[in-house]
Order: sequence, then structure tokens, then C-alpha cells
Amino acid sequence: MRPATSLPIYVQIRDALIERIQSGELKPGMRIPSERELVAEYRVSRMTVRQALTDLVNRGLAERIRGNGTYVAEPKVEQVLNPLVSFTEQMARRGIVPGARVLETQVMAAHGRLADALGLRIGERLYRIVRVRTGNNLPLALETSHFPYELCRGIERFDLERRSIYRILDEEYGIRLARAIESIEPTVANEFEAEVLDVSVGAPLLLLERTAYTSTGTPVEFAKDLYRGDRTRFVTEGRIPSP
Amino acid sequence: MRPATSLPIYVQIRDALIERIQSGELKPGMRIPSERELVAEYRVSRMTVRQALTDLVNRGLAERIRGNGTYVAEPKVEQVLNPLVSFTEQMARRGIVPGARVLETQVMAAHGRLADALGLRIGERLYRIVRVRTGNNLPLALETSHFPYELCRGIERFDLERRSIYRILDEEYGIRLARAIESIEPTVANEFEAEVLDVSVGAPLLLLERTAYTSTGTPVEFAKDLYRGDRTRFVTEGRIPSP
Repeated sequence: MRPATSLPIYVQIRDALIERIQSGELKPGMRIPSERELVAEYRVSRMTVRQALTDLVNRGLAERIRGNGTYVAEPKVEQVLNPLVSFTEQMARRGIVPGARVLETQVMAAHGRLADALGLRIGERLYRIVRVRTGNNLPLALETSHFPYELCRGIERFDLERRSIYRILDEEYGIRLARAIESIEPTVANEFEAEVLDVSVGAPLLLLERTAYTSTGTPVEFAKDLYRGDRTRFVTEGRIPSP
Repeated sequence: MRPATSLPIYVQIRDALIERIQSGELKPGMRIPSERELVAEYRVSRMTVRQALTDLVNRGLAERIRGNGTYVAEPKVEQVLNPLVSFTEQMARRGIVPGARVLETQVMAAHGRLADALGLRIGERLYRIVRVRTGNNLPLALETSHFPYELCRGIERFDLERRSIYRILDEEYGIRLARAIESIEPTVANEFEAEVLDVSVGAPLLLLERTAYTSTGTPVEFAKDLYRGDRTRFVTEGRIPSP
């Protein structure tokens, strides 16, 4: 084994600040000690302290308020990682008011990966619906969903800003989702995503890509959802059955 | 419903390029058409094309080779999102040679969140083990794990670079993990993380934070794993049982 080496000082200071936040010593909305105060407390350079604070902001644990210091962020909205529980339902479970703003609905021709995922022939029609999802009016996610046109003709007539699409599919078309495969990757916001999600360009986002099926295996949805990393986190549980 | 609006052109070009990669028209290692070629093909500005290409790189779908253009990246290493399947096992399933480089092993005093997570009193000892995990010698993750000292005294004597810690716990200490809670958040690399993972500062990373327990509920591990977003993705499945 190699000798124990030390992590960089700014990582250690960041972790000490994370501890102070997670233990409740520093509460949401409280000001984090200033760069000057941290320099005095830890006896390190201003540069080192600044790196530690930047890390806190990038982890979504703190917010910088221009010319006014760094503040402990509100806790992230926690969601269960279950691709079949709708955003609307996830928010309702946490007592948060869900909302949506439709950016785009269009009928387009299936091609490439979309056609594959939805089991359509090239050129067959599908709906593409792009929505910004909000929790208590704060933008949390940018959802881009695709549905075969023939399965849900006229879906654009329903209220896609107030109703869950999964509920519309169930209640208006008799389509129930039973199985979904989801992939999870981190990414960073481009200019468009930054603008609609109200974050900085380069801010961390979580990309969830999902294909959802009925119980008989008919593909119904192919979706790409981008969640704000500073305001949301997902939780999952694993078990190994005892022998 | 609002009228269908259009997404920005560079997002549309990015999505068209993603399609060409995912459909196999552009294969790993192939050069993506140059900025000049894309300008001619899509009749847009160089700036627009550059934004589309930057997005591809940020999604881990392409790599820039300085002074030499942009190339389609190798497919990401796909892992099942199951907090109890070790990294070693995940790699083995994909035919990838797992490895580890120990950056730090130390015995430290429990405090704050670490003490809470591991059910220790403040000041009780724990191990902290920091490793860079590799797949076919490429750095994929930075793992920081904590274990109660009394549960696995002397663990630093074992070969933490070649053996899975979960296997060492099982085979040497008779400790089997049965349940784990994991949270999932996107973040971006700081300087230290960028250096050990061989990515740029600001590159997308996935933070998995995990607490693992035995079947009787004894906490054994508290870990923070940072995965490279450009080289790894996680996959999960959701089901709703048919009525």
C-alpha cells in the first residue's frame, strides 16, 4: 500500500464547510463566512478559500450573491429515481406545486434513433413536446418527450401545462406505462438550457434519457430530461436479498 | 396551448449530429465534419456550429483533438445503477479490466455527518480510503469511502489496488452488505478532480453518495464517488406491476 497522502487543502476546506452545512451549523439562507474570515480561520491563501467556495456553489450547496457574499442554499428537491413516477407526482409527494411551460409541440417525422426507440418506421409521425418543469414556480427541469402520433392523436389539445402527460395518456387514451429503461449522465448547461432553466452556462445538469413501454411492450415515450443539479437530486435504494 | 416555437439552431444541429453518431453513420474514432464543412452543410454561422460541437463534447459524444478537429468518442462504459454491485464487478461484467490507485488511506476521528452516517460517536475512529478507479487503465472514478475502524481493523494491509473492498470485507471480515441508499447529483470537476481523473476543470461529473448496511442494519460504508461523465453512464429500470 502507498503511504497516506493528503488531499489538496481547498478540498479539505470545502469538505469542512460541507460538514458545517450538513450538520446544520450553517443553515439555508445563512451567510457563509467571507473569504477574509475563512483566510483567517484556516490560515490559507485567498485563492485556496475561493476554490473551496466555488466547489460549494458547483455542488449546489451554496449560492453567490453578487457583491454580497456566499449563502447556504435551500436543500435540493429530492426525487425517487423511478422513471415511471411522473414529475407531477414526484413534486406532489414533497408538497411542492408542480408546473410546466410548453416551449414547443410539433408533429415530426420519425428518423434514426427516435424511430428505433419508438418502434416506428422512418417517416412515420411522432409528437415532440418540450416543456420546462417548475416546482413552486422555480424551473427545475427541461423535458423533451416524444410519443408516436398514432397512439395519442390530438394530445396537443389537452392542458400540457397543468396535467401530467402520463395521466393524460392514461385517462384520455387508455395507455398505461408499465416498464421503462433510463440512463443517467451528468452534463453542463449550454446557452439555451441555461436561459430556460435560469442557471449559468456550464452549470451542472443531470441528463435522464428514458424509453417507456406498456405492459405488452409497446414503446410509448422516448424522453430526454435535463434536471438542474443545484436544485434537484435523485435517490435510489439497492438491496441484496439475504441468503 | 402555445404555438410551437423552435429550439435554437445550434441545439437542432447538435441533435442532428447526435443522431448521426447514435445511428452509426458516424462511428467512434471517425472525424466529425469540420466547422467549415458544417457551415456549408447547414448554412449557419461558424459560431452556431461551434456551439453545437461544444455541446457534443460536453455530452461526452465527441472529443476535440487540438489543431486536428473533433472526433466521435468511444461509447461510454455503461454500469447498472446498483449501489451494491462493486466497481470491480461492474467492470468485469463488461469485459473491462478494473484497477485502482490508492491516493490516501488514513484513520481519522468521526465527526458531523460521517459520524451520523456510520452510527459512530464523535471522536470514534474510522478509515478513509481515497482511490482512483480505472477501467482498462483509463481513470473513470474518484472514490472516497469511509468505514468504521472497529469493523475492519487492519484493512489497509490488504491489496486495495487489486481487490474489491466489498470482497475484502466479505472474505476477511465476514461483513456482507445487504442494503444501500444512494443519492445522485451532477457536478463539475475542480482542479484536483480534473487532474486525477484526466479531464478538464469544469468537465461534467456524476456524484454518487452512498450509505451501505449489513442485513441487520449496521452501517458499514459511507462513500462519495465521482464518475467521469464523458466516459461513464448508469442505467436503471423501472416497473409498475400490472394489476
